[in-house]
Parts: sequence; structure tokens; C-alpha cells
Amino acid sequence: MNSPPRVTLLSDFGTADGYAGAMKGAVLAVCPDARLVDLGHSIPAGDIRAASRALARAAPLFPAGTVHLAVVDPGVGSGRRGLAAEIGAQLYVAPDNGLLGGVLGPAAEARVHELANPDLWRPEPSPVFHGRDVFGPVAGALAGGAELASVGPEVPAASLVRLPEPAPRDLGDGLQGEVVAVDRFGNLITNLTPGEAGAGGRVEIAGRTLSLSRTYGDVAPGELVALVGSAGAIEVARNCGSAAELLGIAAGHLVSWRALRREAD
Amino acid sequence: MNSPPRVTLLSDFGTADGYAGAMKGAVLAVCPDARLVDLGHSIPAGDIRAASRALARAAPLFPAGTVHLAVVDPGVGSGRRGLAAEIGAQLYVAPDNGLLGGVLGPAAEARVHELANPDLWRPEPSPVFHGRDVFGPVAGALAGGAELASVGPEVPAASLVRLPEPAPRDLGDGLQGEVVAVDRFGNLITNLTPGEAGAGGRVEIAGRTLSLSRTYGDVAPGELVALVGSAGAIEVARNCGSAAELLGIAAGHLVSWRALRREAD
Amino acid sequence: MNSPPRVTLLSDFGTADGYAGAMKGAVLAVCPDARLVDLGHSIPAGDIRAASRALARAAPLFPAGTVHLAVVDPGVGSGRRGLAAEIGAQLYVAPDNGLLGGVLGPAAEARVHELANPDLWRPEPSPVFHGRDVFGPVAGALAGGAELASVGPEVPAASLVRLPEPAPRDLGDGLQGEVVAVDRFGNLITNLTPGEAGAGGRVEIAGRTLSLSRTYGDVAPGELVALVGSAGAIEVARNCGSAAELLGIAAGHLVSWRALRREAD
Repeated sequence: MNSPPRVTLLSDFGTADGYAGAMKGAVLAVCPDARLVDLGHSIPAGDIRAASRALARAAPLFPAGTVHLAVVDPGVGSGRRGLAAEIGAQLYVAPDNGLLGGVLGPAAEARVHELANPDLWRPEPSPVFHGRDVFGPVAGALAGGAELASVGPEVPAASLVRLPEPAPRDLGDGLQGEVVAVDRFGNLITNLTPGEAGAGGRVEIAGRTLSLSRTYGDVAPGELVALVGSAGAIEVARNCGSAAELLGIAAGHLVSWRALRREAD
Repeated sequence: MNSPPRVTLLSDFGTADGYAGAMKGAVLAVCPDARLVDLGHSIPAGDIRAASRALARAAPLFPAGTVHLAVVDPGVGSGRRGLAAEIGAQLYVAPDNGLLGGVLGPAAEARVHELANPDLWRPEPSPVFHGRDVFGPVAGALAGGAELASVGPEVPAASLVRLPEPAPRDLGDGLQGEVVAVDRFGNLITNLTPGEAGAGGRVEIAGRTLSLSRTYGDVAPGELVALVGSAGAIEVARNCGSAAELLGIAAGHLVSWRALRREAD
Repeated sequence: MNSPPRVTLLSDFGTADGYAGAMKGAVLAVCPDARLVDLGHSIPAGDIRAASRALARAAPLFPAGTVHLAVVDPGVGSGRRGLAAEIGAQLYVAPDNGLLGGVLGPAAEARVHELANPDLWRPEPSPVFHGRDVFGPVAGALAGGAELASVGPEVPAASLVRLPEPAPRDLGDGLQGEVVAVDRFGNLITNLTPGEAGAGGRVEIAGRTLSLSRTYGDVAPGELVALVGSAGAIEVARNCGSAAELLGIAAGHLVSWRALRREAD
């Protein structure tokens, strides 16, 4: 089936002030036939890492050719570049501030162009609302079939701003890392991705040691559980509750994982 | 007019983490032409009753054949079944945990199938995200025209998990029940549905007695008012304010309703 | 390109209770082909001014002929009128309580009809949910091509309820006004629109004097900045933070702007 033109939207604009609505109008003014899909507008204000993570969680699942308009943009109107990129089968429009780091991944294979063609923008863009005046219209143009090259000159993917990610430390028999995010459920998402080995092992956090389980309900309601989350990283959760609240833990807290010792080796 | 394929989405995923967006992508990957409509993703985490109530409030109004994808799923990855159901003119995809109780109602007339056909799922579903890997793709398949029977074997509607609902007590000249929900406005929604008789009568709550009014503005701003809400149940509200806050009341609080005494009988 | 039928939705219904979803279903029941676009449902409960501002920020950007369904309606079921209006190239359906004030602007050039044709409504509308039973179906009818006149008799635009707006006071060399809103970022939006003159000048608020800058990043992170916001009004913000929190200021706080003195005149 041929996919209709589609634009997803991700931002820290909230849904009380009309900013997200204005950006939607700006997309549709250029491409009235575009289907709009909210990825969410509740990213904490200015939290580029959270936006990068949410975008990476959702965008790659969409049909090929979907345009993802992602705007968390504390540097709006300053020197930071605006970007349009083709990564995998998806298109992205976003500020160059690290937001695309999650979908780029370490490989950073992407075709990236800098937004430099004001013919695609609203006239006289406000220096404080490029979502409405620059990014939105460009996303509409791409959804309507404009070539990536029409937005401006190509730039090397390696030139994109990348936010430093805390790297897990190799412990020999495991990994030490940290909590990189707390989600709506109070689950503590870590930067530990044990891969195949993750089928077993122990997780240590805040003085507790937890066996790696399969799902939340493997422990009694109210109990802590460690498992491999839906993006492949270890998370520490609480069945029917918030691990973050129970442990009083926020992003940055240390966590480690140790593989099961194979007894007979 | 022929209705285009449409999938509504209801969850407790919030809109900050990308989970709802991922589920949307999974639907569209299967049915790129589906129109997505958010019923809302702010159900309190794990609150199946609240989800059941919200779904029952909204879903039956949609055009026939709409697929409603509802995922509040604390038991994800455990033994609980996944379901696809035809209830009235609507289709539903949800975990079997009571979420469909509101749309089933006491009659429970439904054609229900258990999700058991992994050909419709994403490969190797994560045990902690069936919204993305199982329910979403199945909803996409149904929106695209797949038969209900294709998802798995039929199961008796009577076998579905039902959450016990507090039953109102007959007082002879009225009913005693309780507050079952507090909505965004601070309105106290009760389980009292006096039906025709509800045109009059008195409501007693927290030591106050309120005549049954027609709408919020029937009392002065700041005053309490009892009325029959938009779903037919008695609610206690505060004109231009929150009754829950004013009375310090949460779900579970007792409330009673007494019919008007007919004087000359 | 011909624009498909489209209805945007703005309300204070939140996204946890199913009310917004019910209103969507009511629109689609009348016009199954309508594309729905959320402007947002997080308007503070009953805050007509906030809704008016959000609507004015977003609606005029949409393709001509878009129907904007805006329901913040504390007076539901009372005597207040329901309206359908054509303002500029857009259509609006809303209660007559001031909500349309922002899109009307001071000129108030509009073609307005009162909702008085129950054939377009759901049967026996609940007196407490006109969004679902009156406004939603009317928006669906208009999206489906019904004439504005079909909803009821024309009424003078001048007869619409207008909420008094605080008028800035002329200071000779500037303006004194007030903070009229605080947005999600903690930006303090004022009612001062210096127009062309706004390219320079000083803003005084809470004992601070700020030069009018261009964008947030013109000051160091954490610093206060005054600038002309995306709707043309002066706002006081904090780079990478909340000005409202830093200054402890809410709507109503006084603010003034003074033009740059031209030294050599």
C-alpha cells in the first residue's frame, strides 16, 4: 500500500499554549494533505536528551518516508543550524543540537542537509519560534514531495552536534553504568545493554541486588524488578509502582550488571 | 459516506517518553492508511478502571468499524490474554484485565477472540511492550480489513476478566453508592444512576445535602451542585471550581441519593 | 492542492477522562472523513482567556476552510449561546463566552451564526456536555460542507461576549502593561506590543531593567532576557529556565517598556 504523506511531531511545547497547534498549522499550510501524528509534546522544557531518546524509541517504527518534525530548541534564533536528514527509511527535521543523536546512533549513517533555503520558510521567521516558521514549513515541503536537497546544502553527518553519552565501564564480568532516564512509570532506564548475555545476571542499584527477570509481573506487586526494557537496555522497575519513588533515585545514579557466573567453568 | 480505516489509541504511556509514538508507528507499519485518533495517553499509570471508564465514555460514539486500541497493561508479558473484540459496532484490541469492562457493560454481548497468531505481531515481541509489538500490529491488521477470527481463536465473552464494581445499595426511597472517579475538573463521579427518577431528588455527601440540579451554572460560582452527568450518573461538582478539592474527597467516598417525596400520595 | 475536511480541537478536557475522545467521536460520527488535529486539551479548567490566546496563536495558520472546535465552557447548559463563525479564512465552533476574542481581535470582522438548529445535534443533548452533543456534531457538519447558515440565524459579531483585556497605559516614551500569561516554559507574556519601535528599548519588571534582545540565547544560561515573542508581544524569559519561577511572578504583574532615547535629537 502506498503510504500517504505523513508528519509526526515531537516537542517540548506542551498542549496548553497553542504552540504545538501553531506548528501543525504551519505544516498543513504547506502540505494540506499531510497526516499529522503526535509523538508527544510533553518533553521536559529544553531537555534535548529526553527528546532524542523519545524520538529514537518511536520514529524508526513508522512507514518508510515518514517525516519526523522534532523541535526541542533552547538555542532557537542563535547560530545553531537547522537540519533535514534521511536516516534509514525515515526523514527528520530538527535543530542541530543533539536531538538527532538517538536516531543517528553510533554509526551516524545519514544524508543530512542544512536548512538554508528561506523560500521554504514562512516570511520573516520569528527568532524565537522556528518550529512554526522554519522547521514546520520545511517538514510540510518534504511531506509534499520536495527533495531533501531543496532545503539547503548537504553537510557531513559527522559534523552534527552530539551530546556526550555516559559510556558504561567494563567490569570484566559485567558493566557499570548509570540511570539515564526515568519514564512516566518511574522505571529507571539505564545505559546498560548486555545483549545476548542479558538473559541472565544480577543488577545492583542503591544497595539492592536484583536478578534479571523477564517482565514486571515476575515479582509481587510493590517489589523491585530488573529486566531488559523494550529498547534493549536494562531497566529497574517496580511492579505496579514507581521504582524511582521507592528508591529515591533520579537520572545519573550508578547501576551495575554482572553476568551469571558459569559455575563449572 | 464510507469510513476510512481508523484506529483510536488510549493508554497510560504519557506523551513524554515516546511509547505512545512507538505504538502508533507499529499500527501504521501494518496499515499505513489508518487514521489515528488519540483518546488520550494520560490514564494514571496502571489504572485499569480509569481506562475502562474513559474508553466507555468515548469509543461507542465513533463511526462503525473503528478499531479502538486500549493499552493499560500492568500484567504485560505475564499470563494474561490479549483480546480483540467486536462490541456493538466497534472493534477493540486490549489486554484481558478488565479494561473492556466499561464497553462490555453488564450485558457483555460481544464477539471476542484471543490474540494467538504471532504472524500478526512484530517478530520477537518484547515481554514488556505488547502495545508496540502485539496490540498495535493487530489493531493495524484489523483496521486494514483482517477478519476478527484471524487474530486467534474465539473465547466466550463471559470468560473475560471483570473488575468488581461497587454496587449501589437500595435505600427504598433512593440509593447509596460511592464516588468512583474524580475527573480533571474535580467533579465527583458516582455510581448512582437514578434514571428517569433522577430528574429530582436530593444528594447527600460529606454532610451536605444538595438538590439535584440541571447544570453547573444553576448555582453561584464556587457553590457545590449535584447533577446527572453526561454518562447518566450523578456527579457532585463545584461551579467554576473543584468539588474534590473543596470537600477533600477522593474515590471511594460514600454518597446517597433520595428521590423527591411526593407530598400528596 | 484541495484541502481535505479538517477539524482542530481545543479544550480544557484533559486527556485522562475520555471527554476529548468522546467529542472526537461525535465529530466523526457526522463527518467520518474529517481529519482531526489536536490543538491541545490542557487548557486550565475553565480558563477562557488561556483558550482564547491559544486558539489565536494556532488557528489562523491552518489551511483555509479548517473548522476549529474550541470548547472551554464553564457556562455549559446555561443561557450562553453556542456559535459558529467565519473569521478570515477559518471556521470556528465555540461557546459565546469570550473564547473567540483572540481570533476576532479588535476589528471583530466575522460572519457569526448562533447554534439553534437541533437537527445538527445529538438527540437530547446533555446539559453538561455540549462539546459532545452540540459543538462536536456542528463542527462535523461544517467540515462535511454544511453552510454556516444551516446552524442557525446570523447574529451581529458585535454582540459576542468579549472579556475585558487590560489595556497598556501610554507612558509617553513607552508603555506600561502587565503579564497576561505564563507559558509552559515559564516565559512571562505581556500585553505590550511595541511594534516597529520594539526593535530596541528597555523592559522593567520586578525591579529589573532588561534591554530588549532578539532571542533567548542572547544572554547566558540562567539569565533573564526580554524580547519580542512569536506573536509580537514583549515577553520576559530566562535562557534555559523559567522566568516565572525565578521572579516569583504570575499573570497580573506590572511591566513597562521604554523606547530607546535617541541621544542626538
